[in-house]
Amino acid sequence: MEDIITLNHGSGGRITHELISGVFMKYFNNEKLNNLTDSVVLETENCSLAFTTDSYVVDPIFFPGGNIGKLAICGTVNDLSVSGAIPKYLSSSFIIEEGFSIADLETIVKSMSEEASMAGITIVTGDTKVVPRGKCDKIFINTSGIGFVKKEFENIGNAVKVKPGDKLIVNGTLGDHAIAILSSRESLNFEANIKSDCASLNHLIQKALAVCPEISFIRDATRGGLGTVASELASKIKKGIIIDEKELPVKEDIQAVCEIFGFDPLFLANEGKVLIVVPAEKADKVLNAIKQDALGKDAAIIGEVIEENHEKVVLKTISGGKRLIDMPAGAQLPRIC
Amino acid sequence: MEDIITLNHGSGGRITHELISGVFMKYFNNEKLNNLTDSVVLETENCSLAFTTDSYVVDPIFFPGGNIGKLAICGTVNDLSVSGAIPKYLSSSFIIEEGFSIADLETIVKSMSEEASMAGITIVTGDTKVVPRGKCDKIFINTSGIGFVKKEFENIGNAVKVKPGDKLIVNGTLGDHAIAILSSRESLNFEANIKSDCASLNHLIQKALAVCPEISFIRDATRGGLGTVASELASKIKKGIIIDEKELPVKEDIQAVCEIFGFDPLFLANEGKVLIVVPAEKADKVLNAIKQDALGKDAAIIGEVIEENHEKVVLKTISGGKRLIDMPAGAQLPRIC
Repeated sequence: MEDIITLNHGSGGRITHELISGVFMKYFNNEKLNNLTDSVVLETENCSLAFTTDSYVVDPIFFPGGNIGKLAICGTVNDLSVSGAIPKYLSSSFIIEEGFSIADLETIVKSMSEEASMAGITIVTGDTKVVPRGKCDKIFINTSGIGFVKKEFENIGNAVKVKPGDKLIVNGTLGDHAIAILSSRESLNFEANIKSDCASLNHLIQKALAVCPEISFIRDATRGGLGTVASELASKIKKGIIIDEKELPVKEDIQAVCEIFGFDPLFLANEGKVLIVVPAEKADKVLNAIKQDALGKDAAIIGEVIEENHEKVVLKTISGGKRLIDMPAGAQLPRIC
Repeated sequence: MEDIITLNHGSGGRITHELISGVFMKYFNNEKLNNLTDSVVLETENCSLAFTTDSYVVDPIFFPGGNIGKLAICGTVNDLSVSGAIPKYLSSSFIIEEGFSIADLETIVKSMSEEASMAGITIVTGDTKVVPRGKCDKIFINTSGIGFVKKEFENIGNAVKVKPGDKLIVNGTLGDHAIAILSSRESLNFEANIKSDCASLNHLIQKALAVCPEISFIRDATRGGLGTVASELASKIKKGIIIDEKELPVKEDIQAVCEIFGFDPLFLANEGKVLIVVPAEKADKVLNAIKQDALGKDAAIIGEVIEENHEKVVLKTISGGKRLIDMPAGAQLPRIC
């Protein structure tokens, strides 16, 4: 096989088949995918389906703590998990720029395979397109996912059970992904020993649901950060939300970078952080369950739902003041995921 | 709303929300999508699932007979349909270049909505990413699809029931999509009143299955054309396939262009053509059923499965000779879909 991707790799002919068997099947090898039919046929379970999709265009494609392939698995696993689903099946679709290194493609595909295996999800169908040089930026990956949801968890993504008094829990430090991406972009020049938090949270979320099926809302805090998720939630439930700034977990390195660049960690992207909203009397139980998981060791109760300040998020600042915070209009950083 | 896409439209913040409600929800409006949760929760049916994905990168994005949006619906509907499934749910994920016209985006989204409605499939979840100018070519769309498959049709995509004597049927003329794309590329200059055959074939396929549940194989002949599908089938079933050149439906205009450019219609891309393999005694019945559908009026029986020439496709030429045909290594035309 040649060592770079050519337009013929996207033709659907013999050379496409060689790429599929030489790279994709080498790592994604499983009985369902091996059939290479137009659609894969899957067993259903006797409960509802969760279905989601995301395209990943992160720049750079390799960054501290992960790469575009790992991210494409974690992101979609998390979108299923926050809907109360057990993630089960993934599709993966590649758009690759002519001239892309096949060795880099293998690294990415291998990461995807490893992360899928850790999350317990199977890549069952896929697609590969190649575009001429300059027509895309190295590689874009879409993953779509299917999971199964038990009846009792069907409304977790809808927030219908959220009520004043419910506590907000986050499973760890904020902004790690955004600052890892920032630190790895060539045009910026600062030293920071910061890794993306890119991780599949399905096992952590299942642990939380196991001790507290009454969890009223879960959402991963990706683009837009925890602040945007809180704003969207306040607007959806038509209640207020108060966040206690001193409880927000932020690494010292991240805080330092935020101060230099004027970023607010509350609005920085994460790829391994969820907001979990729970009835007040269950908050400690859920917090303890999450802390048992390596991905939840820095978890904290960071705020609560309130009757006042309808549809607004209020930040109780470290200095003791209060200020309304609003969803930002645009991005602090583009192409973060 | 501004009239072009900006990086902020991909930020996940307020401006992303405005794009979603102003363009996507305007056309894709349905109860499931309106929730805008990370995953949509769907009812299952008491049968197997079909699951498929495709990214669409066609160049140009508007072409005679369709656009990238219509294509993204038809292509995925067809991938589900050829697996014996009734297409039910679609995801749609957009990667858009900064500066792209919002009016063009609306045209594309409107086409998607219309085609989905004709095919009876619902767009239930989605994603939007924006990349800086020059980092993708206008717009790429991924659609992933879910359908439900009755037990009796589960193996139609696997070809396990195909046997010598089975007849090959195609539902109409070959090469229309490839030549429509070719004719609309700026760098080429020929007049041809040719439209892409881009269409959702689920209703036609269901008509065929209704009169003949014993259909042994269905596959849409897209990238690589009918010749590639036949080659893959011969290789999979370890039998030979004979195709009768004089029976191949090809429009006069297409034939003329093929002669000028040296293309073989057998290997040109289609976006509304399927190969259907049926037991010989049912071939006329299936042919007649297909011909009742507007998308099957030019259908023809074009060959059969034979015991000889294992894993090879033999073309019986118009002049009466026979020659082996092979899957092409690469593409006749790049970025056809």
